[in-house]
Amino acid sequence: MWGHTALSVLELAGIFVFAISGALTAIQKGFDAVGILVLAEVTALGGGVLRDLVIGATPPAAFQHLGYLLVPLAAAAVAFVAHPVVERLAFTVLLFDAAGLALFCVTGTLIAYAHGLGSVQSAVLGVVTGVGGGLLRDVIARQTPALVRVDTDLYAIPAMAGAAAVALAHHTAIPVPVYAPLAAALIFAFRLTAMLRHWKAPQALRTGTRPSRSEA
Amino acid sequence: MWGHTALSVLELAGIFVFAISGALTAIQKGFDAVGILVLAEVTALGGGVLRDLVIGATPPAAFQHLGYLLVPLAAAAVAFVAHPVVERLAFTVLLFDAAGLALFCVTGTLIAYAHGLGSVQSAVLGVVTGVGGGLLRDVIARQTPALVRVDTDLYAIPAMAGAAAVALAHHTAIPVPVYAPLAAALIFAFRLTAMLRHWKAPQALRTGTRPSRSEA
Amino acid sequence: MWGHTALSVLELAGIFVFAISGALTAIQKGFDAVGILVLAEVTALGGGVLRDLVIGATPPAAFQHLGYLLVPLAAAAVAFVAHPVVERLAFTVLLFDAAGLALFCVTGTLIAYAHGLGSVQSAVLGVVTGVGGGLLRDVIARQTPALVRVDTDLYAIPAMAGAAAVALAHHTAIPVPVYAPLAAALIFAFRLTAMLRHWKAPQALRTGTRPSRSEA
Repeated sequence: MWGHTALSVLELAGIFVFAISGALTAIQKGFDAVGILVLAEVTALGGGVLRDLVIGATPPAAFQHLGYLLVPLAAAAVAFVAHPVVERLAFTVLLFDAAGLALFCVTGTLIAYAHGLGSVQSAVLGVVTGVGGGLLRDVIARQTPALVRVDTDLYAIPAMAGAAAVALAHHTAIPVPVYAPLAAALIFAFRLTAMLRHWKAPQALRTGTRPSRSEA
Repeated sequence: MWGHTALSVLELAGIFVFAISGALTAIQKGFDAVGILVLAEVTALGGGVLRDLVIGATPPAAFQHLGYLLVPLAAAAVAFVAHPVVERLAFTVLLFDAAGLALFCVTGTLIAYAHGLGSVQSAVLGVVTGVGGGLLRDVIARQTPALVRVDTDLYAIPAMAGAAAVALAHHTAIPVPVYAPLAAALIFAFRLTAMLRHWKAPQALRTGTRPSRSEA
Repeated sequence: MWGHTALSVLELAGIFVFAISGALTAIQKGFDAVGILVLAEVTALGGGVLRDLVIGATPPAAFQHLGYLLVPLAAAAVAFVAHPVVERLAFTVLLFDAAGLALFCVTGTLIAYAHGLGSVQSAVLGVVTGVGGGLLRDVIARQTPALVRVDTDLYAIPAMAGAAAVALAHHTAIPVPVYAPLAAALIFAFRLTAMLRHWKAPQALRTGTRPSRSEA
């Protein structure tokens, strides 16, 4: 059983690691302290803010409970001071990131559904919640979004699979406290396997002369 | 007379070709299947979502009727499989894109006006509806937005002309079913002529040493 | 005492110079007239629109009073015709930009607070109001945001200091007409000093091999 406290702790942990990934990106790009803070906040909160704007839940959760703004600040401070250590923990960070993705995607789908969206639309918005922050991070940091790059391991597809599972479960008698953690576990395990086996999404076949310009 | 069904068919056709343009951009950039889908959805729906967020019509239309999300998915699948064919149909795609621009711009202006915005503000939001998706596409694909580039044929200016015509017509006794299709036809014809004659928007004159950094 | 008219004049002046900065960026990048207009509007109005979307005040102020849309249009026209003169006035533009930052940041914080946000959240949204337009300008113009670059003088930090001052003042008996101009003066003076002394925000120390990829 997932209690509300456990969920909140998990959510703040997800925000923390998303923020760490934003802060590390900023450090790698040579940004200043402001850039590290901005990328930490945007990466951690961007997906949820997009979701809340779409469902009309204003002000977004990120602007309601102080913890949402403070946790990325703490993550930025940790990354600022201890980024060589954090970078050595790269796999651990990716593990937590997968957990954050799973959690945000499932809770995002549930929140959208609770606001009256259709089940497919809710699933799409759940995926937006999970991947939106990283997309904004990459746009601000001026790097080709990991979301669309062909050399990155599957990320959105596990999220889509889990959100679709939640959307299907809406139409059954299975209670939320049963299927929500199962869907999150599906996303987590799928993403983890994709990372370990380096699964990639397919690319459209190019024929004849290759005008493909890869600019990572 | 434009019946509601005809309008819906036209709207879905506009969404389809906007999505095709997003998918083709993703393929040219060498993105993976997820990137193709993301760019198809964002290009097709981005302008309308921006409009709906600004007028406070949440959830945006894109998240209300399932067709809005599914048509770009279909377009992405078509482009993924058949992009060499689609690319050979480049002019046809541009024709439909001009039709989509005309339609989105006029309906966007009307919707904004119906939500109580002033006529100039409605026209501006109509233009945002027409060009917003393409702008988001270019930002995510990391290319200088076609909207602002000096080497692209007029695109926003036909949209502005049509939206301004709708805004002016608001103050006359001409009924909407008369002026709306006329304004859409104006945009379509203006955009088509601009494409065929390669009309460009003027650039500010640069004097002395040219610090202009063109980075297409 | 700040009368309402004086505040409106100051606000439109702030919008004007933010728009000038957007237009000049577009001219330096070699964008066409549409690009100059788009960057002028987005830079001037983007921060306020983001703020209004977050607090749920739709349509945003930028779409309510016509002056908000017309002033950036005028600024774009001035920059288009007279940009060599405007560029020679670079320091004057930066002065007004500092005034715009101060004003937007303080009014943004006050507006957010009036909409029921907590004081820290209001301060964050005030900073977003002040720096959001410039961030969007840089994303569209495809340059590394000045906000995060290590070679730019302090910009967000004076804004944060002023917004924090407003947030603290909320909890005292000091009336708004007293502390608001003081906080704006603090931002203005802090930003000006940072410009004159070239104060930079610190960067995270990099150790060992430098994988820092600077791509200004």
